[in-house]
Amino acid sequence: MIELGQRAREASRLMARADTGKKNAALKYMAEAIEASRERLAEANREDLERGRENGLDAAMLDRLELTPARIDTMIEGLRQVAALADPIGGITDMNYRPSGIQVGKMRVPLGVIGIIYESRPNVTVEAASLCLKSGNATILRGGSEAIHSNQAVAACIAEGLKRAGLPETAVQVVETTDRAAVGQLITMPEYVDVIVPRGGKGLIERISREARVPVIKHLDGICHVYLDSEADKAKAINIALNAKTHRYGTCNTMETLLVDSAVAGELLPELAEAYRKAGVELRGCERTRELLPDAKVATEEDWATEYLAPVLAIRVVDGLDAAIEHINRYSSQHTDAIVTENYTKSRRFLREVDSSSVMVNASTRFADGFEYGLGAEIGISTDKIHARGPVGLEGLTSEKYVVLGDGHIRQ
Amino acid sequence: MIELGQRAREASRLMARADTGKKNAALKYMAEAIEASRERLAEANREDLERGRENGLDAAMLDRLELTPARIDTMIEGLRQVAALADPIGGITDMNYRPSGIQVGKMRVPLGVIGIIYESRPNVTVEAASLCLKSGNATILRGGSEAIHSNQAVAACIAEGLKRAGLPETAVQVVETTDRAAVGQLITMPEYVDVIVPRGGKGLIERISREARVPVIKHLDGICHVYLDSEADKAKAINIALNAKTHRYGTCNTMETLLVDSAVAGELLPELAEAYRKAGVELRGCERTRELLPDAKVATEEDWATEYLAPVLAIRVVDGLDAAIEHINRYSSQHTDAIVTENYTKSRRFLREVDSSSVMVNASTRFADGFEYGLGAEIGISTDKIHARGPVGLEGLTSEKYVVLGDGHIRQ
Repeated sequence: MIELGQRAREASRLMARADTGKKNAALKYMAEAIEASRERLAEANREDLERGRENGLDAAMLDRLELTPARIDTMIEGLRQVAALADPIGGITDMNYRPSGIQVGKMRVPLGVIGIIYESRPNVTVEAASLCLKSGNATILRGGSEAIHSNQAVAACIAEGLKRAGLPETAVQVVETTDRAAVGQLITMPEYVDVIVPRGGKGLIERISREARVPVIKHLDGICHVYLDSEADKAKAINIALNAKTHRYGTCNTMETLLVDSAVAGELLPELAEAYRKAGVELRGCERTRELLPDAKVATEEDWATEYLAPVLAIRVVDGLDAAIEHINRYSSQHTDAIVTENYTKSRRFLREVDSSSVMVNASTRFADGFEYGLGAEIGISTDKIHARGPVGLEGLTSEKYVVLGDGHIRQ
Repeated sequence: MIELGQRAREASRLMARADTGKKNAALKYMAEAIEASRERLAEANREDLERGRENGLDAAMLDRLELTPARIDTMIEGLRQVAALADPIGGITDMNYRPSGIQVGKMRVPLGVIGIIYESRPNVTVEAASLCLKSGNATILRGGSEAIHSNQAVAACIAEGLKRAGLPETAVQVVETTDRAAVGQLITMPEYVDVIVPRGGKGLIERISREARVPVIKHLDGICHVYLDSEADKAKAINIALNAKTHRYGTCNTMETLLVDSAVAGELLPELAEAYRKAGVELRGCERTRELLPDAKVATEEDWATEYLAPVLAIRVVDGLDAAIEHINRYSSQHTDAIVTENYTKSRRFLREVDSSSVMVNASTRFADGFEYGLGAEIGISTDKIHARGPVGLEGLTSEKYVVLGDGHIRQ
């Protein structure tokens, strides 16, 4: 692992100064290599799937592991999209003269070496590698052991693309061992790794956050709220509350708890409950919710703190904005929270006082996404406050350094 | 410590929404309280100084500990300056419509609770507290045990200012125990502390970085370089090389190693050596340097990696820009490095390829400073790449969250 780290560190110096054309060429060549290797990829993937079945992986795991032709198309398309994004590296901003006569600005630079630790999906290999490459970083990828053959086949295509473009093949390295100790090493060598991005289940992310001696860009939970204010427009309230829950159940920006002002709960909840029932969503409510919706199960303290990732919704009736904000700042995972209201002052208070990575007015929490925000890509969503917060695109994989230009200036 | 943390977390929520006027009033009232408490401060400080002398503190330590009338003036002036700075909190930028119809932007928000750990200087108490307050954060301050009476007297003034302005007194808390275990606790409670800023010697910072379970904004070393290129203007080269070393010896942005292109070493080094000799700077050189300056001591591998903080300078003759960049990227602490050259292409390469928090052309490394850069204040200089890099002002104590505005928009 140390050798791997040293090679990554060396490659990162070359990648930091690689010009935009070369980086884009590498991405294009990778796409071509994948296109030309469809059969080889499918074969490697079959091997992983077979071994997975033998080892008794469940259906969901096997599904994530599979590289269908459509998923290969998506990988190729993703590479072309990343090539089309603007190169953030080297951009200089805020260049201003100071009273001393020097000119000071900031230049965007790569972070250096990024370690990506992920579970079964082999398509993450390409996705993560392409974003790190475009942002001028070297990458060490550590995928799940169950996907090792698929990942190595993908890695061969990546290496081919780098080589054809004249970039170091070591700019993207896939850890070849399936030894779990390798992860422990990867996250504890700050000399060679500048940041770790874990992608996977909560267990993986918790373990990595706990043990890492390197900064981690992560989100653990997406416990998102929608608050229907007393002055909410009824149609907007119902549309957003439904969309935020039922558009997709398994995503981190899905609403898990609905808060409704007591003044409008009687008007909104029965109609909403009927729509949720049709969609097959199980409802769990506080006492006041259950007065209006007797069929709802009892929501316990635990429900307020749970990310269901399933057709289950917790509902709480609250008395006004303050109670809603208090609930959110207590139980939210600081991912995404929304208010539905026509009231100007309450919308402004919600935006300012809710301490989450995305705060929304009259929009569905499902919009919290790098593509929807116009980042052009997303390596994850950070619920931390240090460095990147919210959807992390190319810029989240960079830093800025100060640039000072003078004409022989000395400090007086 | 947990109670202290809980109080800080609560206060941070109130501080996050405190309006600019109140924060500025608190800073003004603190300045007034310090002005009115000069005698009390001096008395508390005398107590610390006496105890310090009894405990055998050295002269430098006692000097740092002393609250002279001039230092009290500086504290008062500092508070007024921070009050005059623009409030970064709540500012919204990059608000743009997306194809889906939502409008997406970013709002600047406080980090939450900031722990400051520092050594003997009691004036840091006011400096750190004022910057954290202005940026909407709650602060826990842990000063050196030798300054405990001074710090508590200063803390009383801070509390008075907060109270008069109607802000929670718990927004700035000074740890009252001198128990060293308190530091260990402060840096390992991420539930209550969002970031740690250590200010002090390398030993302190190393220990905190090693043991913290909370992000740390820090710099360890300032091993800064000036490279005199073959196409350097002679007058600029000599002025900058002298200023970067001799303007002040004990600061982190002072040059510690001078690199000189072999093509101009013969022309520049003897003249420079004469000027350094007059200033009382001890020179240590590589073999080629010593051919030109026989009086210089031998520089060893260790010299290239040493922050002298003293009138000592290491000099190395190199063959061209690539060798200079290689030396810098190997030995620099990524703080501040400068090139002196009239060559356009070499200046651009140096700016892009040197991986330090400040890179300069034809300017003295001594300019690397929050005030010189126009940040209006500085809580420290970060040599990390994650979150803040280079001089850290108010903005480094903040984060950004996404703001999404819609009119009932749902995800299709």
